[in-house]
Amino acid sequence: MKDVSIIGVGIHKFGRFDDEPYTKLGLDATQMALRDAKIEWKDIQIAFVGCMYLPATSGVRTLTQLGKTGIPISDVESACATGGTSLGMAAMAVGSGRYDFALALGMEKMPRGFMDPTQLYEDWQIKTGLSQNPMYWALTARRHMAEYGTTIEQLAKVAYKNHKNSVHNPNAMYQKEFSMEEILTSRLVNDPITLLMICAPNEGAAAAVLCPTEIARRYTSQPIRLAACVQTVAQYAADFRVPAKSISARVSPPPVTKFTADKAYAEASLGPKDIDVVEVQDTDAFCEIAAYENLGFCETGEGGRLIDEGVTEIGGRIPVNTSGGLISKGEPIGASHMGQIYHIVKQLRGEAGALQVAKAKVGLAHVLGAGGNCGVTILTR
Amino acid sequence: MKDVSIIGVGIHKFGRFDDEPYTKLGLDATQMALRDAKIEWKDIQIAFVGCMYLPATSGVRTLTQLGKTGIPISDVESACATGGTSLGMAAMAVGSGRYDFALALGMEKMPRGFMDPTQLYEDWQIKTGLSQNPMYWALTARRHMAEYGTTIEQLAKVAYKNHKNSVHNPNAMYQKEFSMEEILTSRLVNDPITLLMICAPNEGAAAAVLCPTEIARRYTSQPIRLAACVQTVAQYAADFRVPAKSISARVSPPPVTKFTADKAYAEASLGPKDIDVVEVQDTDAFCEIAAYENLGFCETGEGGRLIDEGVTEIGGRIPVNTSGGLISKGEPIGASHMGQIYHIVKQLRGEAGALQVAKAKVGLAHVLGAGGNCGVTILTR
Repeated sequence: MKDVSIIGVGIHKFGRFDDEPYTKLGLDATQMALRDAKIEWKDIQIAFVGCMYLPATSGVRTLTQLGKTGIPISDVESACATGGTSLGMAAMAVGSGRYDFALALGMEKMPRGFMDPTQLYEDWQIKTGLSQNPMYWALTARRHMAEYGTTIEQLAKVAYKNHKNSVHNPNAMYQKEFSMEEILTSRLVNDPITLLMICAPNEGAAAAVLCPTEIARRYTSQPIRLAACVQTVAQYAADFRVPAKSISARVSPPPVTKFTADKAYAEASLGPKDIDVVEVQDTDAFCEIAAYENLGFCETGEGGRLIDEGVTEIGGRIPVNTSGGLISKGEPIGASHMGQIYHIVKQLRGEAGALQVAKAKVGLAHVLGAGGNCGVTILTR
Repeated sequence: MKDVSIIGVGIHKFGRFDDEPYTKLGLDATQMALRDAKIEWKDIQIAFVGCMYLPATSGVRTLTQLGKTGIPISDVESACATGGTSLGMAAMAVGSGRYDFALALGMEKMPRGFMDPTQLYEDWQIKTGLSQNPMYWALTARRHMAEYGTTIEQLAKVAYKNHKNSVHNPNAMYQKEFSMEEILTSRLVNDPITLLMICAPNEGAAAAVLCPTEIARRYTSQPIRLAACVQTVAQYAADFRVPAKSISARVSPPPVTKFTADKAYAEASLGPKDIDVVEVQDTDAFCEIAAYENLGFCETGEGGRLIDEGVTEIGGRIPVNTSGGLISKGEPIGASHMGQIYHIVKQLRGEAGALQVAKAKVGLAHVLGAGGNCGVTILTR
């Protein structure tokens, strides 16, 4: 495989845009990425469009508005990890040598209100009441609290950090700081998770232009190298688990985030200690704590300590979700990972403004969702 | 890119299977392909699952039933050309050198009754009444008849040939021969297309296992080489057009089937004269006549003559839709192209039974659908 780099990124703010069709969201992100890459739409040779709740051929109907250039345009989907797939396929298209310029676009308009669990969950999950994410993850949070002493205040601190970061991210949905008390006393969704600790399904888009690293400097002075882009599916039935102290790690496969991250670290020849800035799947505040552990930033059970010590704040040793995370940005599923990529690219270029992590050279983005779909991307400058 | 071959194929009969979930259809086709390739599920390193009407993460929920091996499994979609994308992505995964064994699976369960046109068509198409395929294609058929003297009997002959072939294809939905009179007098769908001239949306699955050509003979004595696998999107607004005598071919881009086929022929270093057996998108009988012309088997306007002269029958110079085509098999969208691939592989191996085309060495499969999505695959033995 050829080495692949990102030469342009674009985004449409995440939020709710009743008057804008999904095509508008996708086009805005794509045109911004093309301008950033200093190439034109006619230069793109293949496109992968991640979306989950949009109608068939959404990618074609969006991108052909820029010109009917005849290139293959495919919709792809892997639940919350969809963006890993669109980016991974675009990277493979360029890496294979078959295409020089590929577009990875993620875009989404999600339905409001109750989501039909039969669309995403297995029969046993529905029958046991574990058919909506908040229920599932609340249980895993409670288990972690019981096993390792993680506290509800630590969960709230994750939400506090992310909401605080989002104030400086114009592409986040909320952009509002909340006090610890506001977070802790906001409406209970599923004990112990409150409304301000959980992400909202919403709308948005983000895109990246990829080309072989060997020609990337013709287009930008700051190409961002795709050091690893790994997608996997969990090796166990439930999407999320808490490794219990009482159960030997040897009796079952690793959590899918650890499994995926280990592959990505190997591919990039890097380890957790080399990572300068991180975006993770904080579907709720506990998910971020679990990600700290499974991405190798601390030992199992020590995620709560990391947030207490400020390690994952901007200025800390491993700033996590400097964009504000899904908790403040919302999660437009198809666009989620590409939105993380947009933000990490900005960080590695030194263009993250008030959110900038000093001297960031290596970034990691992580997504995880229904079906156990997981993606970990490592970017370097 | 490495050279890529198919070492195993599998299929679940196309039809309507109220008692079988889509996962069963997909698993049956996959297990048959794995047995055919003489490898096990744990050997597969990446999978692309084409589907259009199934819920999110259908591929994961189907294939992980064979074992949670942790490999990436992505749903992909390009309307009626979906199978081209799943096969093309699997080919790129192997061709890039990143994976040795890839699975391309197509599976579908389509809704019955009226399909919501807003899901697939542009506003102007709905407003002009061109919002369902039969309406669209009936107009193109009528235009071809006016321009080139194509007759309704020639359309009926296409349906006659395909239904007749299907009697020997156990995987076709109808498997029933109809007389010319039955076809011509069956219920009119959209003038001039009658019910027995048009395909039915239905259910089914088909799969292929791919590996580098350099190791393919370890698994099968008859690997089938993927000489070309090209996907494109039409360069004009409407999906289907009839090149009018009165308009110079130079004023507009070629029909998307010609555009795609020319790329595939170039990639395979082969031409229309080299093709021994063909499967095309016969959504209705006229579509097959248009395909004859756009795939280069005759000049524009001469498609009707080809069917009159028996050129595309088994025993003719270029047998087309020896499987019975979509007209008799039905069109489970996600599975459609992979079903064609299954049948072409059988032909090239000499395993097509009563439908066998003598000495078939080169096969071509073609799909075309909403959004102008098109795929042409060329296989050689």
